[in-house]
Amino acid sequence: MTTVGVIGGGQLGRMLGFAGRPLDIEFLFLDPKTGSPAAAAGAVIEGDFDNEEALAALARRADVVTYEFENVPVTAVEWLSQKVPVFPGGQALMSAQDRLREKELFESLGIPVPGYRSVDSEQSLTAAIESIGLPLVLKTRRWGYDGKGQAVLRTPDDVEPAWQQLGARPLIAEAFVEFTRELSVIGARRADGDWAMYPLIENRHREGILRVSKAPVEDRELAATARGYLEALLERLDYVGVLALELFDTGGRLLANEFAPRVHNSGHWTIEGAATSQFENHLRAILGLPLGDTRALGQAGMVNLIGALPGRPAELERAGFQLHDYGKMARPGRKLGHATTVAESAAERDRRLSEALKIIEN
Amino acid sequence: MTTVGVIGGGQLGRMLGFAGRPLDIEFLFLDPKTGSPAAAAGAVIEGDFDNEEALAALARRADVVTYEFENVPVTAVEWLSQKVPVFPGGQALMSAQDRLREKELFESLGIPVPGYRSVDSEQSLTAAIESIGLPLVLKTRRWGYDGKGQAVLRTPDDVEPAWQQLGARPLIAEAFVEFTRELSVIGARRADGDWAMYPLIENRHREGILRVSKAPVEDRELAATARGYLEALLERLDYVGVLALELFDTGGRLLANEFAPRVHNSGHWTIEGAATSQFENHLRAILGLPLGDTRALGQAGMVNLIGALPGRPAELERAGFQLHDYGKMARPGRKLGHATTVAESAAERDRRLSEALKIIEN
Repeated sequence: MTTVGVIGGGQLGRMLGFAGRPLDIEFLFLDPKTGSPAAAAGAVIEGDFDNEEALAALARRADVVTYEFENVPVTAVEWLSQKVPVFPGGQALMSAQDRLREKELFESLGIPVPGYRSVDSEQSLTAAIESIGLPLVLKTRRWGYDGKGQAVLRTPDDVEPAWQQLGARPLIAEAFVEFTRELSVIGARRADGDWAMYPLIENRHREGILRVSKAPVEDRELAATARGYLEALLERLDYVGVLALELFDTGGRLLANEFAPRVHNSGHWTIEGAATSQFENHLRAILGLPLGDTRALGQAGMVNLIGALPGRPAELERAGFQLHDYGKMARPGRKLGHATTVAESAAERDRRLSEALKIIEN
Repeated sequence: MTTVGVIGGGQLGRMLGFAGRPLDIEFLFLDPKTGSPAAAAGAVIEGDFDNEEALAALARRADVVTYEFENVPVTAVEWLSQKVPVFPGGQALMSAQDRLREKELFESLGIPVPGYRSVDSEQSLTAAIESIGLPLVLKTRRWGYDGKGQAVLRTPDDVEPAWQQLGARPLIAEAFVEFTRELSVIGARRADGDWAMYPLIENRHREGILRVSKAPVEDRELAATARGYLEALLERLDYVGVLALELFDTGGRLLANEFAPRVHNSGHWTIEGAATSQFENHLRAILGLPLGDTRALGQAGMVNLIGALPGRPAELERAGFQLHDYGKMARPGRKLGHATTVAESAAERDRRLSEALKIIEN
């Protein structure tokens, strides 16, 4: 029997596990916390991500190791790689962990990005503002997620507080993009170069956290452009697994925001809404199995359940949704679950999403 | 957290569990064997189905109890019902366990059945042959599954050996139906009477075991007839949960063969091929949650993997299938897994099924 080791025991690990259990794949997660969501899908080694004993146990018992978040210590992945195959590889991880490297990678591939400047002092911040103009977004280069470690600078008065808040770490200043919408594109690639792309996804965030995803976005031209960017990225990184690329649509022109070297929240709709889910395709990719069909089976919509599950989850089910409860304790701003609907028309999907948002917000 | 108790730890229990885990439902199975397939989806109490201590543990720890095979001792279900809700109820179970009661139930609802006669002696067998004619099928009234406990009588010479083989038990003689195809129809019903039907399914058996299912069968008239039969059955039994009704199509006329008071092999395609799987809808029904959409998301085909898994399962995946491995030891005639494809056209689905059968038979 195949055992997949997963660094991280959050909901993404949990859903990877749920996708693999029907294939009779065993899972072994590494997570420092007890009672992690992934415990429902396999055994959990409780230990820090850089705990050598825990990593050794993972290497010993797993046939292949992957991770479910991009802030895995690169040293841990490198250490593991000498003992067991680890996918995706360290290059993808290093680029994804540093917004500056990530932007440089995009640029080197001809993928357009918002204007940006490295910021490591108040002087360089002043220079960045002169070069990019206001508003701009100041971000930590590392350890940011769900909008954390970011500040929007709209007027010169915002500079000092933002610097106080973030200035102790290496930063990047990015032009504030007036996008018409946020998109993402998800691909899966095998070691032999075979790859597949899911339909283009539209995303809506609130307070930095993904709120709603809809797919497929029916725009051939945009999809073709996104496909080109995704393919270039996967090839350059010699990528193995699922990767998500976030894009800003600025009225038909796509700018790359960031990529995640893992299954992605904007791809959760693929569980019900695509012929093969992103979770199953990630497993297929890292295990060298043929990739499954990435076609959408209808008009899918997903809402995240953040901070609290709805008081009456049955209302979401009545509205045509499939509920995914990550089994986590409620806490403000925490992703506790999501719900997906697959409708026959985009109009019906959008109607259901509105209904779901009303249910969630009550 | 909700805990569902399941009598039986086979692949149906396993898939019920897999359907419920994303909803953060816990599962507790009762099975006499160690290492049952359902162990991948929850805890297993090892004990016989009529072991009172084991049943008591199930009643204590489960919020609701269901079963995944119809040969559960009725006494066990009745005992349990006094302590915890058990769905489907005992009436459905008793009818499904006895082919004679089942036929009488169908007839009382105006659902056509093949000619039949109760057989409990060689004289009554002779009378049955005179009344029904040859060929006929002699079946045990109880404990038959996957074609076991059956004999086809084609000539008078077949009578004696069949009687030797089966005669010690209460039997039923049924007219041998020259059907054009076998169909099944699956419904889910809640305690409040709300119910939903999946699209009509076509099935092909080999050596008494389901080999291939395809859905949806695009025939409005047949589907409407099947719907009427299913509805009558669900209502009469005041049924709660998923029920499958097997039908013979004799050139446009439907005859009821039997029903199963549980999720059904011919509904496995609903995992990938329907908006809500039969497993999730069974859970929703027994937990009083709103039923999910039963619409097909494409042209689905399922093949059972019997006796052995294909030597190179990746070939099935390459052919566009999702593999379900039940984690069982191989043994001739044993259902070890299944594989499903969802295509955009029936022609493409049929092409893939042919390819899959070639892969499996090699």
